[in-house]
Amino acid sequence: MASSRLVDRMTEILGPEGVISEREQLRAYECDGLMNYRVIPEIVVLPETAEHVQRIVRYCHDEGIPFVARGSGTGLSGGALPVESGVLIVLSRMRRILEVDIPNQRVVVEPGVINIWVSQAVADEGYYYAPDPASQIVSSIGGNLAENSGGVHCLKYGFTTNHVMGAEVVLPDGTMVNIGGGKAPDAPGYELLGAFVGSEGTLGIATKITLRVVRKPASVKTLLAAFKDTEEAGDAVSGIIGSGIVPAAIEMMDSLCIEAVETAVHPGFPQAGAVLIVELDGPEAEVSSQFDQTIEICEKANASEIRIAQDDEERALFWKGRKAAFAAMGRIANDYYVQDAVVPRTELGATLKRISELGSEYGMRVANVFHAGDGNLHPLVLYDNDVPGEAEKAEDLAGEIVMTCLEHGGSLTGEHGIGRDKMKYMPKMFTTEDMDTMQLLRCAFDPHHICNPGKVFPTPRLCGEKPGPFHMHPVQKAGLAENF
Amino acid sequence: MASSRLVDRMTEILGPEGVISEREQLRAYECDGLMNYRVIPEIVVLPETAEHVQRIVRYCHDEGIPFVARGSGTGLSGGALPVESGVLIVLSRMRRILEVDIPNQRVVVEPGVINIWVSQAVADEGYYYAPDPASQIVSSIGGNLAENSGGVHCLKYGFTTNHVMGAEVVLPDGTMVNIGGGKAPDAPGYELLGAFVGSEGTLGIATKITLRVVRKPASVKTLLAAFKDTEEAGDAVSGIIGSGIVPAAIEMMDSLCIEAVETAVHPGFPQAGAVLIVELDGPEAEVSSQFDQTIEICEKANASEIRIAQDDEERALFWKGRKAAFAAMGRIANDYYVQDAVVPRTELGATLKRISELGSEYGMRVANVFHAGDGNLHPLVLYDNDVPGEAEKAEDLAGEIVMTCLEHGGSLTGEHGIGRDKMKYMPKMFTTEDMDTMQLLRCAFDPHHICNPGKVFPTPRLCGEKPGPFHMHPVQKAGLAENF
Repeated sequence: MASSRLVDRMTEILGPEGVISEREQLRAYECDGLMNYRVIPEIVVLPETAEHVQRIVRYCHDEGIPFVARGSGTGLSGGALPVESGVLIVLSRMRRILEVDIPNQRVVVEPGVINIWVSQAVADEGYYYAPDPASQIVSSIGGNLAENSGGVHCLKYGFTTNHVMGAEVVLPDGTMVNIGGGKAPDAPGYELLGAFVGSEGTLGIATKITLRVVRKPASVKTLLAAFKDTEEAGDAVSGIIGSGIVPAAIEMMDSLCIEAVETAVHPGFPQAGAVLIVELDGPEAEVSSQFDQTIEICEKANASEIRIAQDDEERALFWKGRKAAFAAMGRIANDYYVQDAVVPRTELGATLKRISELGSEYGMRVANVFHAGDGNLHPLVLYDNDVPGEAEKAEDLAGEIVMTCLEHGGSLTGEHGIGRDKMKYMPKMFTTEDMDTMQLLRCAFDPHHICNPGKVFPTPRLCGEKPGPFHMHPVQKAGLAENF
Repeated sequence: MASSRLVDRMTEILGPEGVISEREQLRAYECDGLMNYRVIPEIVVLPETAEHVQRIVRYCHDEGIPFVARGSGTGLSGGALPVESGVLIVLSRMRRILEVDIPNQRVVVEPGVINIWVSQAVADEGYYYAPDPASQIVSSIGGNLAENSGGVHCLKYGFTTNHVMGAEVVLPDGTMVNIGGGKAPDAPGYELLGAFVGSEGTLGIATKITLRVVRKPASVKTLLAAFKDTEEAGDAVSGIIGSGIVPAAIEMMDSLCIEAVETAVHPGFPQAGAVLIVELDGPEAEVSSQFDQTIEICEKANASEIRIAQDDEERALFWKGRKAAFAAMGRIANDYYVQDAVVPRTELGATLKRISELGSEYGMRVANVFHAGDGNLHPLVLYDNDVPGEAEKAEDLAGEIVMTCLEHGGSLTGEHGIGRDKMKYMPKMFTTEDMDTMQLLRCAFDPHHICNPGKVFPTPRLCGEKPGPFHMHPVQKAGLAENF
């Protein structure tokens, strides 16, 4: 239970409707989309304005209380996992779209705004917001910013970082600053915005975000191609990219994934070793000529079937199948563990082969569904939590998969973040010097480790603060020890 | 004259051919492309390897000697201005292309490699390096990285920051780290690379840089359109962008600029109030249909003449005129001051009008040549250095032009950087909190202000370092953030 002083102070700032302190209610916030870790926070607060956020953070800073920001709680790496004895700042009441400026292609939003709302707000003007994580109908822009979210269309259009142009941020000491350019194309000084985007909530809390929206393409064409196996599908991917075509999306699903999706949402996918969904968009003339080329390349790679979406409805059906993939796993397994890693595109074939071998070695099924164009894998390790030891085995296998990706010149995460989940792998990818250098930034922004502590870096760098006006209170010290 | 100890130590590291310490020879390095400021460094050193750089920097750090990195010295904001009694580290002997990896679209280079060499290295494979500053035949990749250089094709392809994928960096304490992802599309942890690119040499020295190269477009079409004045030309720009076309480049020149260019390189430009050069590139079908649309838009905006480049030779002639613009000013004025600022595209018309008024008020000629598509202005204030007071007047006028851009929601610099030149304007654009927040980064990386000091920020933030020898073990290094 939160100390009555903390509750009183938060209630003073937010009113009683902005404060949750009953244990039963707090339980709803004990984890995000990654359910392997659960921590009940001391208190949950629901600010409605940037000023609220600033007052909450300043109080936390002055009292040495750790805090964690949370958007919609859909993250898959435990980035919004609460800290025991800490404050969880839930931003879902800050969901106003503050400005739509079509001539400058900018939309200014509060952090709790849902991803898809941005596209909806500018749809009539012929624009949309490009980053489209599978969670886009529920995940928040603030959360997308924290995790630098991707999506199926990031191959052509880039990640969240390519679409966030500026942010008003409350720093861990309660200072409010503006970072990034906003409407001007470039700003002088250090480009802190790039470091802030994807910092997984450890450098501060964005309270206002300026997004870039882009024009809807004049034409979209989508095909689904079936192949004997992922290798042949991979050849088609290499062929398409190698020809200079930049598709809006190239997604691959393997047979296990197709099976699950068919059972769950019946998109009528062909029975095959692998399917690709390839979408091209842009000016009519370009799309049409490149689409023909894409079909040819798929044929050369021995596609057993190629279906072309005849209308928006059929296109939606293709995507329904793809976007349901994670959830559909429930139809063929009791539980699954989503891995997220990246390899250079040229290493896709070898990596997939090794993942399949690993599955055999472990005697576990691994379904693959992924952004093939940018080498962002999402292997789904299927297991049964009711069988003792299976969850641990699944996690081990998922860990070996990440290590395989690293060995192939890849990266620990494509778009889900490190969060709580993958801290332990960071030293496999970075030298101590590299990690220390990154943490220089954390120490500069948050020397007392109160802003989303226990995430991203396995070993917090000592920031060398002197004993002085700032004292951690005992509860916090305990909390920190536990979390690191 | 450099202390004999410093000369000895540098000679020990680099050999005598890597050290310049004679005053007469040092004079060649007293300024970069911005000649308003001149400082003779204590010593110039010319490392050949990353290890050399590391040893030089470590020595400077241990001895508390300031240092400045310099590429080809073509910068226009004094970013490579030496520090008196400091070491100037000239990277022009580090100019090897270390790796060309076409399947992953990466080229790895040393910092002294000249911009155009990268394109040349991959041309046979059908690729090129997109950022193309006017200085591209002389400026170095390291310098481009420091200044986040742009160029005429940045509207469609982005700035240097969009094409640098990773860097090996020697930090101000001599630590060597890798930042950024390199070949994998994304790296976890803080994205320091974005902050490092454009940091104007204040956070460390890049010793190895991984660049992204892109495929040469299948088709390029270029036109030159003449208009009555910059306003009508501006209408054409708005029309093109508003229609959803993203040209590879849209450059505008006003009548004064056209006059100068004609006198200097005779490209045969029409006599007009303004000309636009519009270039489209991409797949054949797309370019062709959008090119027709572009012509139509120019006609609607009352273009008095539209010329279409019939072949590469004519295209090269258009660009010769554009790229010669700065140098050509010498034909119509003894001296000129290049300003560099950005306004949101929607404010172009109003800003140009005000610049013209300011010219009249000052009784000075201002020629305009600029990247119209992204609102990046380059007003050239013409003056005569032999007339007492004119240089100062030109600088004042240039200053008022920047302030006008800021008033129109713009930014202090589009691509030339702040350097020594524009520090004084930083407080006009940023609050103290914003600047202090940026300097948190500088303090974290360079608490003793030895790495390119006296640049970018008008007032260096006190980093709270303890008096004493410069020991940089991690705890103390980070501890410098303690006065945060």
